[in-house]
Amino acid sequence: MTRTIDLAVIAGDGIGQEVVAEGLKVLDAALQDVTVRTTPYDLGAARWHRTGETLTDEDLAAIRQHDAILLGAVGDPGVPSGVLERGLLLRLRFELDHYVNLRPSKLFPGVVTPLGDPGEIDFVVVREGTEGPYVGNGGAIRVGTPHEVANEVSVNTAFGVERVVRDAFSRAAARPRKKLTLVHKHNVLVHAGHLWRRTVERVNAEFPDVTVDYLHVDAATIFLVTDPGRFDVIVTDNLFGDIITDLAAAVTGGIGLAASGNVNPDGTAPSMFEPVHGSAPDIAGQGKADPTATVLSVALLLAHLGHDDAAARVERAVAADIAGRGTTPRTTSEVGDALAAAVAEALPAS
Amino acid sequence: MTRTIDLAVIAGDGIGQEVVAEGLKVLDAALQDVTVRTTPYDLGAARWHRTGETLTDEDLAAIRQHDAILLGAVGDPGVPSGVLERGLLLRLRFELDHYVNLRPSKLFPGVVTPLGDPGEIDFVVVREGTEGPYVGNGGAIRVGTPHEVANEVSVNTAFGVERVVRDAFSRAAARPRKKLTLVHKHNVLVHAGHLWRRTVERVNAEFPDVTVDYLHVDAATIFLVTDPGRFDVIVTDNLFGDIITDLAAAVTGGIGLAASGNVNPDGTAPSMFEPVHGSAPDIAGQGKADPTATVLSVALLLAHLGHDDAAARVERAVAADIAGRGTTPRTTSEVGDALAAAVAEALPAS
Ligand SMILES: CC(C)[C@H](C(=O)O)[C@@H](O)C(=O)O
Ligand SMILES: CC(C)[C@H](C(=O)O)[C@@H](O)C(=O)O
Repeated sequence: MTRTIDLAVIAGDGIGQEVVAEGLKVLDAALQDVTVRTTPYDLGAARWHRTGETLTDEDLAAIRQHDAILLGAVGDPGVPSGVLERGLLLRLRFELDHYVNLRPSKLFPGVVTPLGDPGEIDFVVVREGTEGPYVGNGGAIRVGTPHEVANEVSVNTAFGVERVVRDAFSRAAARPRKKLTLVHKHNVLVHAGHLWRRTVERVNAEFPDVTVDYLHVDAATIFLVTDPGRFDVIVTDNLFGDIITDLAAAVTGGIGLAASGNVNPDGTAPSMFEPVHGSAPDIAGQGKADPTATVLSVALLLAHLGHDDAAARVERAVAADIAGRGTTPRTTSEVGDALAAAVAEALPAS
Repeated sequence: MTRTIDLAVIAGDGIGQEVVAEGLKVLDAALQDVTVRTTPYDLGAARWHRTGETLTDEDLAAIRQHDAILLGAVGDPGVPSGVLERGLLLRLRFELDHYVNLRPSKLFPGVVTPLGDPGEIDFVVVREGTEGPYVGNGGAIRVGTPHEVANEVSVNTAFGVERVVRDAFSRAAARPRKKLTLVHKHNVLVHAGHLWRRTVERVNAEFPDVTVDYLHVDAATIFLVTDPGRFDVIVTDNLFGDIITDLAAAVTGGIGLAASGNVNPDGTAPSMFEPVHGSAPDIAGQGKADPTATVLSVALLLAHLGHDDAAARVERAVAADIAGRGTTPRTTSEVGDALAAAVAEALPAS
């Protein structure tokens, strides 16, 4: 547990600016005797339009010095697809070795889900963050001709798979149900799939209390809508994790509530916390964005830095706020203010 | 339209045998003045256990001679993962150039869906069937050591993408809503993604009536549960298609109802029709399997061979049967008998 938090803030574009402001409010309110120092980084679509830069080596070196990163959302329709994704978001995840992309899915009481009444949902997806089809090892020849061939390569290493699988096992072991589901497609992607499968089997020996099962990714999407309560911890590769966590967010109330952590469990670089949603240019600047996903990402950040009590306060405040939501829409800052006030009220007398 | 149908039948394992028997019953009942000749092929887990063979060159040469193939399901827990998938199912799809993997998703009135009341759902996924991460071009080095590297390669060609995109456009153009959605992940898989995107843009010029939009695969899974009615025709790659069609099946009542066609639109080899579900060894031999997905696959087969009236009769019989389903479970052959009787009754007086 740190007495100061030295935070890099990448608010980004569109609603990113608005939701991060609320996240920081709640972060401040949640802590006692801890100083939060924030340094804003001007990264995203606005910077790219102005300078053509996505993330310079200097930006990266500066960001490395912080304890953690809070990111809002980046992008606008004027930036070509892939520029900010590969040049900024994925570059941060890869350079800072965020090999655990942590995405909890919890159905808070009171949330309307497309599933009607699915029962209790409370699982976490441990998505690998530094390998798989995201490595950028593809290429194309004869582009634009009838003879074009475009390849994408998914790279999976024993080193990379084992460390994320071990992380997922230790998270599963710490939860009441102690259940781990590997999601892959080993009947088709036989080389990568078998590496994942063998690794899970081997690491299971270190965590004999954890029950393991396996689902093909296609079958996993079925269970996510027919029986989401069956999941406890899911471990999966970068691309499958991307897909199933958006689906998981949808069944637990939408990406307006979905938080994520890009975690470097070894502490060799700062971890980064961000809502799963994007910059939503259509509603930007109108105070309409729900900051809850960012606030829940702040809770993940607090827990990551050892401030477990503060994290729990934030989560409880969110749960209470959601349970009490009426039909009158609130502005982004009204939601943030309410959450900050609830969190402050829950502080122990000092 | 053919006056005889010379059909290769791969009933396969588990419930495959049971559902195919019912599919053939309905096929016979649906046709007038058309002779159906069936040739059974002993392929699947049973054959592999006995002989170690998945699909020999002789099998393949014989199967090529038929007008079409009806497949039930293959596999049992005793066969290592990938053996029958790569050696039989995918080999058939690749060798017979089934580049259009056709998967309709329709919510029949009366079907219980996990989504409560999602409104009308009626779309079709055109999944590419001969490229992408399914090509089997992966490999691994140092297997079983801490230095293992396992790669999977997604191969996408202008030739392969263009032909399936054109097929999808022509299906969209023939439907009332005339809408095509490309599903990919071009912000991360930039090489393959941009090939798909450019191809859709170019082929759109040949189909100016068709409206096109684009969704990342992760976002597509969200819409499949929050607004499935928005989809008309989806075109996507082999892996994304695998994933979203299982999800689409789940939201329209489960894979017990999901039909598919592995189509060679050029007619250079027979097309293959199969339910999306597997061999379900847990319920095999008990008469519990729902043959509806196979019967709907027979409807796709009939339409493919030009017997549009017969196909429509089968679809209408299924819709009526589903609408009238009570809570008393029926056996596999009871459902098949009922469907065959309804189809026969709908035959025009001859
Ligand atoms: C924006 C994109 C690169 C990113 C991803 O695919 O990982 C996003 O979808 C996410 O899930 O965080
Ligand atoms: C069995 C498997 C190879 C197959 C696939 O992945 O295509 C199945 O899931 C399907 O969708 O037909």
